[in-house]
Amino acid sequence: METELENILNAIQPPDRDAMDRALTRQAQLAKPPGSLGKLEDISVRLAGVTGKLHNEIDRRRILVFCADNGVTAEGVSCAPQSVTAAQAVNMTKHLTGMSAMAKHFGCEVVVSDVGIATPYHCPDVRDYNIAKGTKNFAKEPAMTRAQTVRAIMLGASLADEAARDGVSVLGIGEMGIGNTTTSSAVLAALTGLSVEAVTGRGGGVTDEGFLKKKRVIESALALHRPDENDPVDVLTKVGGLDLAAMCGAFLGAAANRIPVVIDGFISVVAALCAARLAPDAKSCFFPSHCSYEIGYRRASDELELDPWLDLGMRLGEGSGCPLAFEVLDAACAVMNGMATFDGAAIDDGYLEEIRRKDSFSV
Amino acid sequence: METELENILNAIQPPDRDAMDRALTRQAQLAKPPGSLGKLEDISVRLAGVTGKLHNEIDRRRILVFCADNGVTAEGVSCAPQSVTAAQAVNMTKHLTGMSAMAKHFGCEVVVSDVGIATPYHCPDVRDYNIAKGTKNFAKEPAMTRAQTVRAIMLGASLADEAARDGVSVLGIGEMGIGNTTTSSAVLAALTGLSVEAVTGRGGGVTDEGFLKKKRVIESALALHRPDENDPVDVLTKVGGLDLAAMCGAFLGAAANRIPVVIDGFISVVAALCAARLAPDAKSCFFPSHCSYEIGYRRASDELELDPWLDLGMRLGEGSGCPLAFEVLDAACAVMNGMATFDGAAIDDGYLEEIRRKDSFSV
Repeated sequence: METELENILNAIQPPDRDAMDRALTRQAQLAKPPGSLGKLEDISVRLAGVTGKLHNEIDRRRILVFCADNGVTAEGVSCAPQSVTAAQAVNMTKHLTGMSAMAKHFGCEVVVSDVGIATPYHCPDVRDYNIAKGTKNFAKEPAMTRAQTVRAIMLGASLADEAARDGVSVLGIGEMGIGNTTTSSAVLAALTGLSVEAVTGRGGGVTDEGFLKKKRVIESALALHRPDENDPVDVLTKVGGLDLAAMCGAFLGAAANRIPVVIDGFISVVAALCAARLAPDAKSCFFPSHCSYEIGYRRASDELELDPWLDLGMRLGEGSGCPLAFEVLDAACAVMNGMATFDGAAIDDGYLEEIRRKDSFSV
Repeated sequence: METELENILNAIQPPDRDAMDRALTRQAQLAKPPGSLGKLEDISVRLAGVTGKLHNEIDRRRILVFCADNGVTAEGVSCAPQSVTAAQAVNMTKHLTGMSAMAKHFGCEVVVSDVGIATPYHCPDVRDYNIAKGTKNFAKEPAMTRAQTVRAIMLGASLADEAARDGVSVLGIGEMGIGNTTTSSAVLAALTGLSVEAVTGRGGGVTDEGFLKKKRVIESALALHRPDENDPVDVLTKVGGLDLAAMCGAFLGAAANRIPVVIDGFISVVAALCAARLAPDAKSCFFPSHCSYEIGYRRASDELELDPWLDLGMRLGEGSGCPLAFEVLDAACAVMNGMATFDGAAIDDGYLEEIRRKDSFSV
């Protein structure tokens, strides 16, 4: 199994620098002050690096949602019962949750996968890839076996492969799992060496007491398991979750298939960081969405050199930042594909000539 | 003419507090941790205040673009010739500019109006409402007469009236006018008493020398004309522009018709500030879009109590922030209209019961 993972990591290539250069050249030719479309310009260049094409389309959009429970909730780090994971997974397939209501409205496909839900439910629209009925309580023992972690990663990667076969233009990666801000903070602290205090927020809104407990539990677990910061699989195994591992795999699979992939919030960005640690070139395929309200988000996004586009104060998870992020990507493509170049359009007044003589024009 | 303006100001009412209360109640019933959708929740409440309806749709979208030239460009405050105003106005009607390429892609109508273009052009798709062939050079004399200012305001308001008759769901307000970051900084400094240094940026990318000149020209003009900070019409007349005045009128007209209206960047936010100074209740209808790169943007948006949604480093103008802002509004509506309430859906597991017992749940 680890050989298969190695194969995926080896398949991940650097961005297409030639296509990026062509995109940069094209951006300089578009009839606007240089840089005046800010991140939309950067996006079009990065997209070219992913796809190798100057002109891209954001047609078919798919959000992969990985659902799993976390044994550490036994420590009282969350204020909701595990059964919410199953219930919301079902609700997502009915477009009744925040992310899925938006996804339906904006025409995004949603694929909901059970990689580790603990409580029973019946819903044929949730894909049954269950690896365990929740992880172990990492306050006491490692959350998973290494084999389970690798299996979850490979599962995530296989869904990216499926998306590639289906001709999906862009992926978004979301999750549902009570307790997964706790696992994400633990993984982020383990990978970066940052203090638990610096990377741990309140998640869905735990009490003051629960918040203190959450931080103590993470600190103790890191001291107990001493995950190897240079081995993201070890970190995920000891203090991560099946959702995080599968998401990490989906990010890797997207990169291996050169599909642009959108990070949602805190949990999603931690999974992306795991992927980037496993395969540094993967991050050229990663795009941000919104700046999560969770304190640890920026620590991870900074390492990924990603500056989020939307500032909406959201902290819902699920992949809820993805539908709007797809629209931003779409806008960047619309500019690249639709705007006139200084040379490309015959326009009255000879103004193009005037502009071409300047570096920029004031508006 | 000023009586007509008074009539519009008197027509502007406070938001519908009852509808806002109903929207707040509804948001609390949606199956998510309270506040977890951040600004999307606030937007749905504010939209209810504008329209009086709990459920809103962002169907028909229109961007009003006001184009005009500014006599102050004679001082060398811009690096592009006036003819660019006319040329880009024409280009907008062909969807060849940044804003209009996005507008076409996202299905937004664009209405381009000439309220004061100086140089000749031929384009029947640009609406001819020309009030003057550019303003006077405010370094030497007032930019306009008070009658011209009021006429431009009324013209802008009339286009909002037309939008209301056409059943437009949301308006966006943009502009094109070489030199209009200079006029906007002058108006903002005059209205707020802030230093010229604090509110003046480089616009489309003037040289170091031009930037210093730009600030000196504004300071001298404010000292020369001493516009009355309590009379926005006086400020616009002396150091503003026909585009700014018409945009101010469009904001007022939108508010009078209770149409939500999106502010673009720096010039747009200064026009919105003029409107809010004339009719403080108008600002309940104003929505932000992106945080402009221009230094003065935040000074104006803070007074309007608006926190922008998109952080894209844009400084193009034209109304280029509006198409994506409409998508954010649309997302807020999708959540309000599509999400399950704690009571509203029969879902497995009795999880709703569990959630209802808590204030929130951790994700």
